[in-house]
Amino acid sequence: MGRTSDARERILDAACGMIRDRGYSAVGVAEVCAAADVRKGSFYHYFESKQALTRTVIEGHWATERARWIARLTGPGAPLDRLEALFAMQADDLRSEQAAGGAINGCLFANLSLELSTRDPDIRADLEAVFDEQTTLVADVLDEAVAAGELVPETQVRDVAAALLAQLEGVVLFAKLRNDTGSLDGLWDQLRRLIA
Amino acid sequence: MGRTSDARERILDAACGMIRDRGYSAVGVAEVCAAADVRKGSFYHYFESKQALTRTVIEGHWATERARWIARLTGPGAPLDRLEALFAMQADDLRSEQAAGGAINGCLFANLSLELSTRDPDIRADLEAVFDEQTTLVADVLDEAVAAGELVPETQVRDVAAALLAQLEGVVLFAKLRNDTGSLDGLWDQLRRLIA
Repeated sequence: MGRTSDARERILDAACGMIRDRGYSAVGVAEVCAAADVRKGSFYHYFESKQALTRTVIEGHWATERARWIARLTGPGAPLDRLEALFAMQADDLRSEQAAGGAINGCLFANLSLELSTRDPDIRADLEAVFDEQTTLVADVLDEAVAAGELVPETQVRDVAAALLAQLEGVVLFAKLRNDTGSLDGLWDQLRRLIA
Repeated sequence: MGRTSDARERILDAACGMIRDRGYSAVGVAEVCAAADVRKGSFYHYFESKQALTRTVIEGHWATERARWIARLTGPGAPLDRLEALFAMQADDLRSEQAAGGAINGCLFANLSLELSTRDPDIRADLEAVFDEQTTLVADVLDEAVAAGELVPETQVRDVAAALLAQLEGVVLFAKLRNDTGSLDGLWDQLRRLIA
């Protein structure tokens, strides 16, 4: 949010944090502008509406996260070890967030899914695309695990991938609710059972 | 919402649906009053604030749901069969909701958890109490399953119960996002793996 970044970037930085922490409905354009230190006229030069801003936030956040996912899921190492590294990264992100700010704000995509998916078809489509891509990334590694003999050939990789992501989001929900990272310690053990 | 119910009940009925469908921030007292056909003065006779209303909605919804949970989880039948009946009820509720209104609005408690748990300590405490009680109800049945020899004595029943509820909430999140009940079909199979 430094003065060296341009107005559009400052708006996006401010909005990403505010929307993840408080949700869509509770955040107003005026306070995003105040936090980003830009005028409203400038905001509407870059974004047509709060909805358009939110869609750009989703896109940008997933662009960052996608790169981190791919970094964990590709490269050397046994497929299931790489998958474990992905979920360890998710847990570590929440622990870091709590250590830095005292609270666990959870997953931007899941927060917006529960808040908006019955109310905003465009944002729902964006979020579906994010989770579809996540499912594919995980399913691809499970396919590799099957090819490497780590899993039996009968493994329904896409269904298993969806179950793993559901478990992650459920555990993150309870970690956020209780502001407690303890449940993250057992996450991989649970995921391993879902895979087996 | 019929005229035979009193104003307080009409307010609660209207608010429960609106808050579950749209969240806390997006619902205003004025529209709750309009939907319930009561005046604002009457609203504030019964409820100090939207927060107080929401806390009463949570309490009332869980009173209804708790009775349904206990009805499924107690009585004759093998413990794990009763547990399966509980989760089948959850899945059926979502299917009925979609069939009736076209959308899956999901779980009131999970929706409010992601929206409010970092922002409202009172509502967070209410929601924590609901999920703690759910965890205990499920853990008690798992204890029965251990006693009946359905599960090994080493089963960490409270951890397993928490994992089952996490999977449920994650699956409900994706069912809501995709407005697709298909993923509910595999729910018990996934839960069975988490239990094993």
